[in-house]
Amino acid sequence: MELVDSSATKLDSAFTRIQRDVDAVFDALLPLPEDTRRPLFEAMRYSAMDGGKRVRPLLLVATAEMLGVARDPALRAGCAVEAIHAYSLIHDDLPCMDDDALRRGKPTLHRAFDEATAVLAGDSLHALAFEILTDPATTSDPFTMAQLVRTLATASGMNGMAGGQVMDMAADSATYDLPTITRLQQLKTGALLAASVEMGAILAKLPPEGRGPLRAYARDIGLAFQIADDLLDVEGDAETVGKAVGKDSDQGKQTFVTLMGVEGARNQSRALVEQAAGHLAQYGEDADLLVALARFIVERDR
Amino acid sequence: MELVDSSATKLDSAFTRIQRDVDAVFDALLPLPEDTRRPLFEAMRYSAMDGGKRVRPLLLVATAEMLGVARDPALRAGCAVEAIHAYSLIHDDLPCMDDDALRRGKPTLHRAFDEATAVLAGDSLHALAFEILTDPATTSDPFTMAQLVRTLATASGMNGMAGGQVMDMAADSATYDLPTITRLQQLKTGALLAASVEMGAILAKLPPEGRGPLRAYARDIGLAFQIADDLLDVEGDAETVGKAVGKDSDQGKQTFVTLMGVEGARNQSRALVEQAAGHLAQYGEDADLLVALARFIVERDR
Repeated sequence: MELVDSSATKLDSAFTRIQRDVDAVFDALLPLPEDTRRPLFEAMRYSAMDGGKRVRPLLLVATAEMLGVARDPALRAGCAVEAIHAYSLIHDDLPCMDDDALRRGKPTLHRAFDEATAVLAGDSLHALAFEILTDPATTSDPFTMAQLVRTLATASGMNGMAGGQVMDMAADSATYDLPTITRLQQLKTGALLAASVEMGAILAKLPPEGRGPLRAYARDIGLAFQIADDLLDVEGDAETVGKAVGKDSDQGKQTFVTLMGVEGARNQSRALVEQAAGHLAQYGEDADLLVALARFIVERDR
Repeated sequence: MELVDSSATKLDSAFTRIQRDVDAVFDALLPLPEDTRRPLFEAMRYSAMDGGKRVRPLLLVATAEMLGVARDPALRAGCAVEAIHAYSLIHDDLPCMDDDALRRGKPTLHRAFDEATAVLAGDSLHALAFEILTDPATTSDPFTMAQLVRTLATASGMNGMAGGQVMDMAADSATYDLPTITRLQQLKTGALLAASVEMGAILAKLPPEGRGPLRAYARDIGLAFQIADDLLDVEGDAETVGKAVGKDSDQGKQTFVTLMGVEGARNQSRALVEQAAGHLAQYGEDADLLVALARFIVERDR
């Protein structure tokens, strides 16, 4: 009991700290200019500093710290991942995509500004991610820079997040089975979570052949994360979740919940998290934060 | 006379060759997948292999070849720049932006497919640019990779192309003077043209202190390019240009032409091109293609 409480407290303070730190990095990266680009920067700040949980930066920092990397480079790399995540939310919320009015309890960017600014703020955050990763303040080692860029670009594009988003759009008309839904979610959500872990390992200069357990952990929590998301869509409260719920079932869309049932999905997500924790056994207590983060992912209410 | 004809022929064959080569690279990079991401890849191919002039890849390859770099790495880096250019055209054409129906004489991507696919195909081409630049097939040197990425990301984002686009949107309501229009165009169009030249120099491992003449050349042709574009908007023929013309004046927008007049703008663009050519004097005949390309930029009819 005490152990659980202490790691819950540790996770809470890790979240508080990463949220403050990520905001500070974006604040420094996005000073308002004195020309007519001002609304662009305001829009980027609105989306990048909007009170998200910062799961991806924390995942990256926790992995890097477990492997002995200093916090600052990892934090900056985490902000690069978060910039990609933020751009994807902006574009996903657009009228031609999910047409969402609320995001994290605030008006979505195209509602608070306008659609054109939302498209361009997303594009600019996308580019910013790669500006951050090739900034000497992130790392002075070009090999590390290049690997970070390659990992994040691959995880975001046609063979990663954007590809998964297209599969998801097609899910309205196509009938997907469990392996296909799993593949879809590995791309749409899993790729960026896995990239966060991988980038922590890259910063630590852990060779690819030593990344097996971390990759297995990332794969399991990625899937657990999406199952938890599907459960929230069915059982969550719109006010707590901060966005519309019940959309998937309204659209008659296949999800892990429609395919496995509520209980089945919950059991599966919990089993995945325990499995994820098991992969990190070799790291002992050093992996406590990553394990606590995995548990948080399935138990979160938003 | 003979000299002029021979460099015109040389330029023609350089264009023919780069167009074929760029298409071949995208063809290899974008094989149609056997899953529901297929429309995404079809959309990316539609936009990336659509018969553009390929000015940016040619600029990059011509710079690199002048400096002794093999063609293949330069061609691939040129395709990265072209991927960014292609994504920006897709997003610019969207209904919430310029709402264009035609691009290079074909329906714009969101008309040929749909808006959501257009947003995601743009995003995926954006990521693809950085996947290409960190592919060992482009360069095996991580320092070169990192510099290529940094140059292209900076040229595309909030302090480059996307920033210029926002300034351009604001131009409908703001009154810009010539220095402001110049700054706007340096970001919107100039940044990516300058990045093409810079990336050629990076591939050649030319140190930054040796890039002065090339940067001056790039700045001048960037400005000349935009002045020529403004002239085409006033004087061009929609069918030849391949997109709507007369839009700027219809919107009462300030352009180089409204600020300098047609004759003034034409003289200015020609003076810039001669100045650009002058910067490359030290390279002698090796710079013939870059000089011919500069002349093409102001004389083109589309």
